[in-house]
Amino acid sequence: MPSTIQITSQQTMKDFLLKLQQSICEQVTQIDSTAVFVTDPWEKPIGSNLQGSGITKIAEGGEIFERAGCGFSHVSGPRLPPSATQHRPELAGAPFEAMGVSLVFHPRNPYVPTVHMNVRMLSAKAEGKDPVRWFGGGMDLTPYYGFKEDAVHFHQTCKNALAPFGADKYPCFKTWCDEYFFLHHRNEQRGVGGIFFDDFSDLGFEQSAAMMQAVGSNFMKAYAPIVMRRKDTPYGEREREFQLYRRGRYVEFNLVWDRGTHFGLQSGGRTESILLSMPPLASWSYQRPIIEGSAEAKLYTDFLPRRDWV
Amino acid sequence: MPSTIQITSQQTMKDFLLKLQQSICEQVTQIDSTAVFVTDPWEKPIGSNLQGSGITKIAEGGEIFERAGCGFSHVSGPRLPPSATQHRPELAGAPFEAMGVSLVFHPRNPYVPTVHMNVRMLSAKAEGKDPVRWFGGGMDLTPYYGFKEDAVHFHQTCKNALAPFGADKYPCFKTWCDEYFFLHHRNEQRGVGGIFFDDFSDLGFEQSAAMMQAVGSNFMKAYAPIVMRRKDTPYGEREREFQLYRRGRYVEFNLVWDRGTHFGLQSGGRTESILLSMPPLASWSYQRPIIEGSAEAKLYTDFLPRRDWV
Repeated sequence: MPSTIQITSQQTMKDFLLKLQQSICEQVTQIDSTAVFVTDPWEKPIGSNLQGSGITKIAEGGEIFERAGCGFSHVSGPRLPPSATQHRPELAGAPFEAMGVSLVFHPRNPYVPTVHMNVRMLSAKAEGKDPVRWFGGGMDLTPYYGFKEDAVHFHQTCKNALAPFGADKYPCFKTWCDEYFFLHHRNEQRGVGGIFFDDFSDLGFEQSAAMMQAVGSNFMKAYAPIVMRRKDTPYGEREREFQLYRRGRYVEFNLVWDRGTHFGLQSGGRTESILLSMPPLASWSYQRPIIEGSAEAKLYTDFLPRRDWV
Repeated sequence: MPSTIQITSQQTMKDFLLKLQQSICEQVTQIDSTAVFVTDPWEKPIGSNLQGSGITKIAEGGEIFERAGCGFSHVSGPRLPPSATQHRPELAGAPFEAMGVSLVFHPRNPYVPTVHMNVRMLSAKAEGKDPVRWFGGGMDLTPYYGFKEDAVHFHQTCKNALAPFGADKYPCFKTWCDEYFFLHHRNEQRGVGGIFFDDFSDLGFEQSAAMMQAVGSNFMKAYAPIVMRRKDTPYGEREREFQLYRRGRYVEFNLVWDRGTHFGLQSGGRTESILLSMPPLASWSYQRPIIEGSAEAKLYTDFLPRRDWV
């Protein structure tokens, strides 16, 4: 009975995503007991036909995590928007559902990198056809002061997580990540990258879902050791100033280039959930000088240029 | 000899704009002697065919003006982009020039509003046709703590500046401003508005140019008295925190909704000049509570909703 299987799968995925969100937030609080998550369930009609709901979890003002937002959202509607179906024209206008977990953590210490992770599943069912599901997601790291061992560890964890699904996945998704998280107007990468994939169903439902789940489940393995290694590094005004300046780039990327953010804001999505990714504080200054050979210059010379980390 | 007149007019307008920029910056320094403007002339090929040049003037870290950017820019190219010609399809692909002055001032004291002003002229000449010129511009005020007398003075000065060009201009451009400076994703105006116009040539070249010049020339009359009135108002952490939070809205508007900013960044414009409008420091927090009846709540209840100020 396919319809039973379908419903069971949707529910199973929802359970996974909610548990993932809960588990990640608990691990954050284990690292930083002052990072107290507020849980905010919400429901919202989006635009004329879409229905959105979700659970936002956010900790603000923690000693280690200055702003840590982790949201689960679930959107459904009677007609799949054309923008979501460029590779699947046969599904345009079909009833659909999308669900996912998305997070951005902004640490206070400039030696701890900012991080982003997202996993999502879309499903649509054209009339008289079997339901189709596909997946997207990834994670990427944005240091202010880069450390090779951190970038290597993050990428290695991504690579290990994807290894069971084919040796081609990591190199492909690593390149995709570099291409996606690029600030064209700065000619600059957002950070040291990671992995990114979209519109993925190549391995069939079960294995594609498992791959997406592996990305989510390995996120804290990729990030937590970096936080532990850097969180007690002493810093002063200089490092803080550079961090706030670079956070401006994060804002620029998300508001100008990130398709999800931009589309969400322009199409009536829930603003406060979409903007979980914004930093708690960011600064701009005109042609901020970067002194050659300085610790700040190393970010531009040694970390932002695309390279293979593993 | 039309071609002589044409060149003279372009040069005259350029002289006007450069003098306007110079004069405004001088007046800012008269108000705030610590606001030292750096003058940065630049040239840049934009995209494949456009040529841009300009003079950026910016003062950062002043006691009254935390960040005051005022840029002159001049862009020319062999083919007018379709996005600039929606009302003039006959000029698509014609050689064109655009020049203007654009400014955003971010004061330090939360009782002094942020302000934006822009004046610009476009000209294009289709083969075998007379050159066509049109104008755009305006100014708008973004308070953190609103004062009725400030909003009234700002709007009255705009109205007076436009009065010689027809009684319909102020009401029309006031409404246009309210419609343009609107954050759809917040369902919120950017501030108390002012005036905005685009694609304007209704009065013929001379009078249309004079109207645009009147907007530029009256800017400091509209803004300086407000700065003088509020700059010494005592404030503390509370007001500063609210100001930084509201500046986040300014960033959101400019990066998500402002057509000039968004188009400029996506089409290879000069990033640092386009982002003169960014605040020196801005913050985000999740569903920041606004206490009913508080001074902060008054911004939302008494100032942001659209209304007639004069």
